[in-house]
Amino acid sequence: MEMVKIFDTTLRDGEQSPGASMNTEEKIKLAIQLEKLGVDIIEAGFAAASPGDYEAISRISQTLKKTTICSLARAIPRDIETAARALEKAQSKRIHTFIATSPIHMEYKLKMQPNEVLKRAIEAVKLAKSYCEDVEFSCEDACRSDIGFLKEVALAVIEAGATTLNLPDTVGYRLPFEIGCIIREMKQCVGESAILSVHCHNDLGLAVANAIAGIQNGARQVECTINGLGERAGNTALEEVVMILKTRQDVFEDLDTRINTKEIYACSKLVADITGICPQPNKAIVGKNAFAHESGIHQDGMLKHRETYEIMKRSDIGIPENNGLVLGKHSGRAAFKDKLESLGFSGISQESLDAAFERFKILCDRKKEVYDEDIRSIMTEESTKIPQVFELVSLQISTCSSGFPYAAICIQKDNGQKVDAAIGNGSVDAILKTIDRISGYNGVLKDYKVEAVSEGKDALAKVVVKVEFDPNKPAVIGHGLHLDTCQATAKAYLGALNSYLCMKELIVTKKMR
Amino acid sequence: MEMVKIFDTTLRDGEQSPGASMNTEEKIKLAIQLEKLGVDIIEAGFAAASPGDYEAISRISQTLKKTTICSLARAIPRDIETAARALEKAQSKRIHTFIATSPIHMEYKLKMQPNEVLKRAIEAVKLAKSYCEDVEFSCEDACRSDIGFLKEVALAVIEAGATTLNLPDTVGYRLPFEIGCIIREMKQCVGESAILSVHCHNDLGLAVANAIAGIQNGARQVECTINGLGERAGNTALEEVVMILKTRQDVFEDLDTRINTKEIYACSKLVADITGICPQPNKAIVGKNAFAHESGIHQDGMLKHRETYEIMKRSDIGIPENNGLVLGKHSGRAAFKDKLESLGFSGISQESLDAAFERFKILCDRKKEVYDEDIRSIMTEESTKIPQVFELVSLQISTCSSGFPYAAICIQKDNGQKVDAAIGNGSVDAILKTIDRISGYNGVLKDYKVEAVSEGKDALAKVVVKVEFDPNKPAVIGHGLHLDTCQATAKAYLGALNSYLCMKELIVTKKMR
Repeated sequence: MEMVKIFDTTLRDGEQSPGASMNTEEKIKLAIQLEKLGVDIIEAGFAAASPGDYEAISRISQTLKKTTICSLARAIPRDIETAARALEKAQSKRIHTFIATSPIHMEYKLKMQPNEVLKRAIEAVKLAKSYCEDVEFSCEDACRSDIGFLKEVALAVIEAGATTLNLPDTVGYRLPFEIGCIIREMKQCVGESAILSVHCHNDLGLAVANAIAGIQNGARQVECTINGLGERAGNTALEEVVMILKTRQDVFEDLDTRINTKEIYACSKLVADITGICPQPNKAIVGKNAFAHESGIHQDGMLKHRETYEIMKRSDIGIPENNGLVLGKHSGRAAFKDKLESLGFSGISQESLDAAFERFKILCDRKKEVYDEDIRSIMTEESTKIPQVFELVSLQISTCSSGFPYAAICIQKDNGQKVDAAIGNGSVDAILKTIDRISGYNGVLKDYKVEAVSEGKDALAKVVVKVEFDPNKPAVIGHGLHLDTCQATAKAYLGALNSYLCMKELIVTKKMR
Repeated sequence: MEMVKIFDTTLRDGEQSPGASMNTEEKIKLAIQLEKLGVDIIEAGFAAASPGDYEAISRISQTLKKTTICSLARAIPRDIETAARALEKAQSKRIHTFIATSPIHMEYKLKMQPNEVLKRAIEAVKLAKSYCEDVEFSCEDACRSDIGFLKEVALAVIEAGATTLNLPDTVGYRLPFEIGCIIREMKQCVGESAILSVHCHNDLGLAVANAIAGIQNGARQVECTINGLGERAGNTALEEVVMILKTRQDVFEDLDTRINTKEIYACSKLVADITGICPQPNKAIVGKNAFAHESGIHQDGMLKHRETYEIMKRSDIGIPENNGLVLGKHSGRAAFKDKLESLGFSGISQESLDAAFERFKILCDRKKEVYDEDIRSIMTEESTKIPQVFELVSLQISTCSSGFPYAAICIQKDNGQKVDAAIGNGSVDAILKTIDRISGYNGVLKDYKVEAVSEGKDALAKVVVKVEFDPNKPAVIGHGLHLDTCQATAKAYLGALNSYLCMKELIVTKKMR
């Protein structure tokens, strides 16, 4: 049985999705979940890109025990040295350095001759090797590069110490048969001297098919992200590649991954909760409808024999079979903790557990039925909490068709409380303007979304906001969870503000990144 | 140049997505847009499945002038006769009949022997042919069928009059190379006697790659949906297949489609607005981020030379290049109408135009900046309006942290008005309970979502609700658009109720469909 290595880059390429930026606590939480999922390598960031990336790589390196932690680095000494420093405390580490090899990138972006690119690549790998045994080299835009040059670079960087050679389809241009040809030819060239890796982008909707074509032709590492997150149309979706290999074992009989597929659903949910970017309902494997059979003909078939319409089971990816009523107001702390563990939340701090249990009890008093999804949402919020510079104390809203919506809000900062009111065009506008008035910050709302966590008129509302507090820095995300949409909105906006303030010195300006 | 026919099944297979049900007005609006897009065939529904489907097919048949209209029909006389009746007035029509040919479906679902299936298929095609020249036959679950049997059925149904033979991967199980093999072998068998068609499901994330493999091996029709909507993980995404053929003309040099790609974005938006199912931001081609370049390295490359990171242009699919401020409070009716046309809304009734213009004027008075997206949302709402049984007159809400949220609402029905109030767990709960109290209906909220239409604290809120008013009928969708989220919520819930009441006799019970 040969292993296909799963290289997860949700924290690096995935975080490059517009609006997906995560704070350090969220990144650590996700890294822990990825280790449970069983990925081989976690690309935790791009250490030289920002102090935020550096801190995340460094803290994840100190936290995880089994998984190889990796930092991206351009093929320049400063990047490689910074990556090495960030990875210092990792049990198992990798430096991933890259330079573009396609004519268009070399001419217009790098403004370098091929021989200079080759020289830079060799030097970078040698430097990386001096810090770390495990070195990956990527030929950026490999799939639009001259195959002769690609082979020359490949042999040279492997000679210099690279143990993994990655061939990205950086612009998502190739078709599966083309990726198959490139990987087959490169495999003949490098043989067993390095592991070949694919990194496919999804601009034409073919990232997963391309990665699979790569595997069929000799690639033994796939770079991918949870939910297919990433720049533009995203990357290869981890869950799809893994489930293809598993479901079609008849085809891939001698290949396997180390992934525990039962953790896929928990990972997908966590990434969606943190980034606010939810898979569409018809997303393969993890979409809300992926296992739903609507038409009568299909339902009839399913009742007669599941396999008429079903090739995978919900439980394969860890969707709880029973998502009905779970706990009631008489459930104790032990039952609550058991439920959390069954939902994949283990190793929770006593503090988070207490806070979550208290909120659960309040919820039970007010809401008819408490679902798994309610508990998962509360717990995700509690376990990724950051220091609260501003905290919501209370809020009043009034709106009526022919009058002016207004909000009156009380906020705690340090030991003092401050109240104020404002009028808005609509209740959300009123809430956010009041918070600006109290806090003294003036956020620009870039995105606002509300979803019901479960069914029913009294469902918990989950609000996600994306706010820009400084035009030179990327927007931050805030989350709010409450039975009342208005309260959830206030919490989400304050969450974004707190995240901005905590990360302020770590968020790199837009221009730099 | 050979043509690949685009068979759009958004209205049939797409509408089978859980929660995607559309009312007749919405279906007609979408069919008109699909004709503008230039699809060859529109599968407008499954006439025998419900009176709603029948009515939609019949009205679309009377409305469209160029596109072939198609109805699905099981291989039984009643279905085929119903389909023929619904299509009666179409300028160009097709009956699409099917029966399963895989061992598992024949044994467990149909409980029929292969020779009975063959006989039924031939009879169905002959009957369909007596109503209509253009007959499509599908071997359901073709890709898990015995290839020998598939060939036998294919030759027999073509002999009986089928002009298109569709080979669906009903459960989304196959890999691209397998679809390629099946289509190649079937092409050798049927030659030029019928058009081969692929219909791929996306359970493993491979629908588009599989459809492309089909085309590369001789399929000349692709069945697909806008945004890849459909049962479970959905169908082949029309926009991805079309843009692959266009972007990779170097590979598909002798193939083309009749699609006007500049209408893709308008179609995608319309389907998302109507169904409330939005493509994820990282969806290929039509996702919000599909053309967004976040990282500094990419942005730098784009500035130096667009093609370093871009293989398609936003304008190729009709995304307006300028999405800034569009119209102000001094814009007149003519300028507004011009803007609507540039957004793809042509042939609007005077009534819809007047209503939209009036709302636009009110919006200009209250909102700082009016964007293209605001106008698109207003217009979609106005142009798919159904009769208002219950109409919102006014609404008051009050909520505060330590008290009870309540709503007081006034609703018009026929010539009378009724007011009432209720307390809820949160403001949404209060609004919906008050409406129930006034209307006398008791809806179960299955889903609730809010999105900001554009940026800014004072953005329009777009609320989508999914409500079940009768446990034996499918849930209905309602939309509400307003500056105030609470008002938008009330409008959306009333919209769902109105849709339910209008469609009541047309909505088939859950069991039947």
